[in-house]
Amino acid sequence: MSLTARPEVISLAGGLPATDSFPQDVFERINQEISDTQRALALQYGPTEGFDFLKEDIALVMAAEGTSVDPAHVMITTGGQQAIDLVTKTFIDAGDIVLAEGPAYAGALTTFSTYEADVRHIAMDANGLVVEELEAVLDRLEAEGRRPKFLYTVPNFSNPGGTTLSLERRRRLVRIAAERDLLVLEDNPYGLLRYEGEPLPTLLSLDTSGNVVYLGSFSKIISPGIRSGWIVAPQAIYQKIVFGKQATDLCSSPLNQLFVHGLIASGVWLEYIERLRGIYTSRRDTMLEALSEEFPSEATWTRPAGGFFVWATIPGIHTGDLLAKAIDENVAFVRGDAFYQDGGGTDSMRLSFSFVNEERIKEGVRRLGAVISDQMELYRALGL
Amino acid sequence: MSLTARPEVISLAGGLPATDSFPQDVFERINQEISDTQRALALQYGPTEGFDFLKEDIALVMAAEGTSVDPAHVMITTGGQQAIDLVTKTFIDAGDIVLAEGPAYAGALTTFSTYEADVRHIAMDANGLVVEELEAVLDRLEAEGRRPKFLYTVPNFSNPGGTTLSLERRRRLVRIAAERDLLVLEDNPYGLLRYEGEPLPTLLSLDTSGNVVYLGSFSKIISPGIRSGWIVAPQAIYQKIVFGKQATDLCSSPLNQLFVHGLIASGVWLEYIERLRGIYTSRRDTMLEALSEEFPSEATWTRPAGGFFVWATIPGIHTGDLLAKAIDENVAFVRGDAFYQDGGGTDSMRLSFSFVNEERIKEGVRRLGAVISDQMELYRALGL
Repeated sequence: MSLTARPEVISLAGGLPATDSFPQDVFERINQEISDTQRALALQYGPTEGFDFLKEDIALVMAAEGTSVDPAHVMITTGGQQAIDLVTKTFIDAGDIVLAEGPAYAGALTTFSTYEADVRHIAMDANGLVVEELEAVLDRLEAEGRRPKFLYTVPNFSNPGGTTLSLERRRRLVRIAAERDLLVLEDNPYGLLRYEGEPLPTLLSLDTSGNVVYLGSFSKIISPGIRSGWIVAPQAIYQKIVFGKQATDLCSSPLNQLFVHGLIASGVWLEYIERLRGIYTSRRDTMLEALSEEFPSEATWTRPAGGFFVWATIPGIHTGDLLAKAIDENVAFVRGDAFYQDGGGTDSMRLSFSFVNEERIKEGVRRLGAVISDQMELYRALGL
Repeated sequence: MSLTARPEVISLAGGLPATDSFPQDVFERINQEISDTQRALALQYGPTEGFDFLKEDIALVMAAEGTSVDPAHVMITTGGQQAIDLVTKTFIDAGDIVLAEGPAYAGALTTFSTYEADVRHIAMDANGLVVEELEAVLDRLEAEGRRPKFLYTVPNFSNPGGTTLSLERRRRLVRIAAERDLLVLEDNPYGLLRYEGEPLPTLLSLDTSGNVVYLGSFSKIISPGIRSGWIVAPQAIYQKIVFGKQATDLCSSPLNQLFVHGLIASGVWLEYIERLRGIYTSRRDTMLEALSEEFPSEATWTRPAGGFFVWATIPGIHTGDLLAKAIDENVAFVRGDAFYQDGGGTDSMRLSFSFVNEERIKEGVRRLGAVISDQMELYRALGL
């Protein structure tokens, strides 16, 4: 982090939202409301599973994505990362098998590894997780007499892939989960940040078998600095997760919960998401255009319909070898193998367009293109 | 919680601070400063180990208790509970032995049990942890070829005991830790809330062997609603704990960290703690007086020099049997066996004087005294 945080470095590495776009007047109005009427509540301990009013707000937020949930099944967490951690803590013992899309969110892989899970990746293509491969892996495991504890996937604008699971595959995945009693962790922090096309139903909304646990987050649609996320889980699982949370941090910050509530109850959150969509659409378009202009013809990349990330692949190039040179040129990315537990992804990189403005995105991609071209020339000169 | 949260119930159960005493003008001034100059930072992700400026603030807070620390050894956590959780996560595998004072903070015991630790209690008396018993237990374990992973203790105004470890025992405990290479978790959320007598040095300040990991919290001296605590640990341990935190919640809320920083940097925190000391001293005195008047002569209780809690014992009474009757009379406490992992504490109860005003403390203790007298009469009538 420290290298890429140097101001002269154009960082296309971190998945940071554009928090400088948060309106000052809204920030102040919400804090004033808390100060006037809910100060003692904001500063006190809260219920472990979160405030009821925020659970109801979350049901409203999920309805905006066409998903209907009972607020009683919603549990507030200290950010989306804690949602992943608590579910993993609840289900995983050392050696248990976890299926994860590949490439997968690196923070989830870190969590799985702290509980010593045995992670097996399921490949993705332009339409997200390859469900046929999931079935093949499940068959193979069954033949070995083993069962995975759950499948982890980000169906919308995946991190780092930038791909979206097609409707047909969503239906098929939910059917597989029901038929094989496979628990699916649907992680959906970016769902409301769609820049084109029609929204697709969440896995949770398609599921009728109780096999989907849904993980939500306010980090990308409001702010990560308020560490607020949530879990939607069937009642039997819910109580176990609450027990784990009690032992972990007692409750998520009531001050932060009231901040989120202020934003949702006032309706301002919808305007803010509109604003973010505008900012990110333009940055995504800039990045895709710059990639066309600056990256060598051998390179390929995903075209995300939403979210924060483009996943670029340059066949034959080890992006880990590239990183030090890129940093020398004051541009940063995340190397592809950070998103695999099994050594995959070495010829890919994650590029984030969420945090850096258009001018710097262009310049960053230009520098990166030059570094890649140099490296390819070097490989050729060495006969590699 | 739901029963004791009914407004007609006088709850002497929860360890809740008096957050209604937090000054509105201070709350607003701090939020205004954040809004004016640090809004984007407050709403963004932060470093996993916390902001450097807050680490320096914490060194200042610890200096107020006579403890000198290098800010580089300070790590910010999401409340004191996360501090306990992360250290336990770092050190404990299933079956490992943890030594804990008895009675011990119930939230710590819950955490130890989620990692399947084998908890052994060390008795306490009016001067805190009985260090002689600690030595005896260590000898016994050594004879069995076993080593405890750490000792957990709250030396100042313990929860639930209300007792304070004497200076002589502090010195001896630190010496034992050095001689036997025993890791000591010093949990000190109440240290600055002393209502009489001279402050005693922390174990960390007495230790020269690197065997003390210190856990701090802003929950009792500023607010639990901002979920801010800290760990002070030697560098080798520090890095492992940071890795665990990364996988758990990425970072503690920057908005909350800036709130704490605003309070400390302005110096206002010292005034606020003074104010709290005044409030709590009066409530403690009220509770001790009420106990003298209302509890039967067979009962004994601790006289805390600080903190939130009185630990009362009524020989021969199972306080678990008493709780339903007390709730019927609209008064609540925490039963003593909640603070033991081994079935101890059945004839004791924890009474908290921090949250309820003087009038309600008096009335609550009166009701409780009547319930206890009734129960003793019943036991006598039954010839028990």
